[in-house]
Amino acid sequence: MSNEIIDQLATPNTTKIVLLVMDGLGGCPAEPGGPTELEAARTPNLDALAASAECGLLDPVYPGVTPGSGPAHLSLFGYDPVAGNIGRGVLSALGVNFPVQRGDVAARINFASLDRAGLVTDRRAGRISTGENARLCERIRTGVRLDPSVEWFIEPEKEHRAVLVLRGDGLSEEVADTDPQKTGVPPLEALPHAPAAERTAALVADFLRQVKALLADEPKANITLLRGFAAHRHYPTLVERFRLRSLALAAYPMYKGLARLVGMDVREGAASTAELVGMLAAELANYDFFFVHFKETDSRGEDGDFAAKVAAIEVMDALLPHITALAPDVLAVTGDHSTPAALKGHSWHPVPLILKSRWSRPDRVTRFDEVSCAGGGLGRMPSLHLMGLMLAGAMRLQKFGA
Amino acid sequence: MSNEIIDQLATPNTTKIVLLVMDGLGGCPAEPGGPTELEAARTPNLDALAASAECGLLDPVYPGVTPGSGPAHLSLFGYDPVAGNIGRGVLSALGVNFPVQRGDVAARINFASLDRAGLVTDRRAGRISTGENARLCERIRTGVRLDPSVEWFIEPEKEHRAVLVLRGDGLSEEVADTDPQKTGVPPLEALPHAPAAERTAALVADFLRQVKALLADEPKANITLLRGFAAHRHYPTLVERFRLRSLALAAYPMYKGLARLVGMDVREGAASTAELVGMLAAELANYDFFFVHFKETDSRGEDGDFAAKVAAIEVMDALLPHITALAPDVLAVTGDHSTPAALKGHSWHPVPLILKSRWSRPDRVTRFDEVSCAGGGLGRMPSLHLMGLMLAGAMRLQKFGA
Repeated sequence: MSNEIIDQLATPNTTKIVLLVMDGLGGCPAEPGGPTELEAARTPNLDALAASAECGLLDPVYPGVTPGSGPAHLSLFGYDPVAGNIGRGVLSALGVNFPVQRGDVAARINFASLDRAGLVTDRRAGRISTGENARLCERIRTGVRLDPSVEWFIEPEKEHRAVLVLRGDGLSEEVADTDPQKTGVPPLEALPHAPAAERTAALVADFLRQVKALLADEPKANITLLRGFAAHRHYPTLVERFRLRSLALAAYPMYKGLARLVGMDVREGAASTAELVGMLAAELANYDFFFVHFKETDSRGEDGDFAAKVAAIEVMDALLPHITALAPDVLAVTGDHSTPAALKGHSWHPVPLILKSRWSRPDRVTRFDEVSCAGGGLGRMPSLHLMGLMLAGAMRLQKFGA
Repeated sequence: MSNEIIDQLATPNTTKIVLLVMDGLGGCPAEPGGPTELEAARTPNLDALAASAECGLLDPVYPGVTPGSGPAHLSLFGYDPVAGNIGRGVLSALGVNFPVQRGDVAARINFASLDRAGLVTDRRAGRISTGENARLCERIRTGVRLDPSVEWFIEPEKEHRAVLVLRGDGLSEEVADTDPQKTGVPPLEALPHAPAAERTAALVADFLRQVKALLADEPKANITLLRGFAAHRHYPTLVERFRLRSLALAAYPMYKGLARLVGMDVREGAASTAELVGMLAAELANYDFFFVHFKETDSRGEDGDFAAKVAAIEVMDALLPHITALAPDVLAVTGDHSTPAALKGHSWHPVPLILKSRWSRPDRVTRFDEVSCAGGGLGRMPSLHLMGLMLAGAMRLQKFGA
């Protein structure tokens, strides 16, 4: 599945590639026999694009595997999602734009509620506000003192979510989660998975002990649960690998973080997808590759709201002409993974894909939905293959061999 | 992608396999919305074969990758096209039927024109005739003297093309091209890419110096440019790997060379495809596997002549009954790669495939073209998988495991 051959063949060109990721795009029938969200949606613009292009299905990681957002996006960007898997902690750090460095070990924090018996009663501390979260982080920053050989940082994310970053020599990511993933039980201990992680685990245990003492008087968020310990590794950039100067147009922190991880520039300030699409027009001359992220399809799928996901698809469909009007040399529309409302979460189902360029062969797909794309000219393939096809359609790959 | 399991399972049988390669078969619409060359062609015999067989699409090397003829054919013969990639020089040597040996280092020569300022003015010396080329090669053969510890050979190809072969102990292919790939600049120096190549690079530099002095009085071709230095490696033969005694029926030197590389016998003397097909009938009893090469689809695609490529497809279609009448146990019809007339060259698009045997499952394809084959029962797969499927259909693979 490695696509390193693409790196060797990539060559610069003046062509433009736009990758529109409708997060969690793929769906499922709400009831057996019913339509999927895409089948239920009225999507004249996506349908017209599909009819003029080639369609297919993408497997984000491996058939049957439900991916997180990290591997699902990495795969679309041309990075092996298994070999290059990113830990949750680093993903969180990138998401809040923390300047994470190679060797840093990061963990995702949940502010949580502990009762007097020492049992977790709420893993999200009643979903405290982001402002509350920031106040608690500041309290921890000033109140906790760790071994001075290690630098550490705590940064709030949204609501009850935060991130801890440890920096220093000889740190290890091989530390067990302390989040028990359920209520009515005590938090887990920060245990080392390997001897090399003993010092890191002791530091984490010290941190948790001090935080517990410090927040004992808090009404809701009186403890932190840690999970997803991950060391930050170097990813070669899209410029280094594919000669693509790249821009991410995404509103949510995690997707910006993923984009930065592979060396994309990120434009801040856009709150809506319409604004993101406006930025695309303004920046078209300045980059080669554009990652446009549309979040709402995933959010409504996670909510389990079939009708709202259908509506989100129709919102993006209405915005699509602003992208097609720019006539990029290659336009790919797909999802990072499926998020069927019926499952209220990510799923393993392959994701429909439209790939349009001057060199698209015709196929017989005239409607953008899962079953139509299953009969498309691109067939079914790993998401990892998309980057090579986008580069090929943009005439950015040299011939292999004589 | 490795298919080594097939080697372990291959077993002899009396069955016959015919692989018809219509070079550069896959196409693209001349204009968006139009038909591909295959869709435009009238192909009653290929259509009938497709209707009675299984169809699919083959990716020669990797999705998005445009292959040269070497890797594209190796893949159809069951050889990993990336791990087993052949350098240009060796391909040229094979193409002129030079008996290249393991350890030989070969390079492709262009006769070129140098002006008095030492700048390349024409990388093809005005496309001198093949006869001129042969005269120049003979002049070099008699006029150049290299270190006697090394044997060397120069052989003309067509027009301005020739090949240099060095033979001796300790030669290396790690020598930089001297062809600058553009005009108005001096030739590049023959530099070693690695310390082990210093002696080879010095030999090459000596050769180039002597040739330049020798040809100084030539009106057009007064210099040689070298590229694609490549050492000849051993390829296990089709007999060794798959127990297939194999015959190539090809008119063009490079394809004969590729066939010899994997141990096929080659019949000389056929000028036309009709003659090649006639040879197939005569040789059917003598071999297990037959590679029949049809060049014109690629040539007309390279010319950018859509109508001529359509006509070439129809020529092969008219000859097909002479092959089907022989009723081989397995008949595969495909291309080594796509050569859309709209692109005037090889492309990355997958190639349509018909695979016919007594054991073909039915599918719903009744027309041999790209979009129909995309909906075929074989799906989309690497070309490397074809050999296993041909062997299976010919009952030449044992069961794997108990």
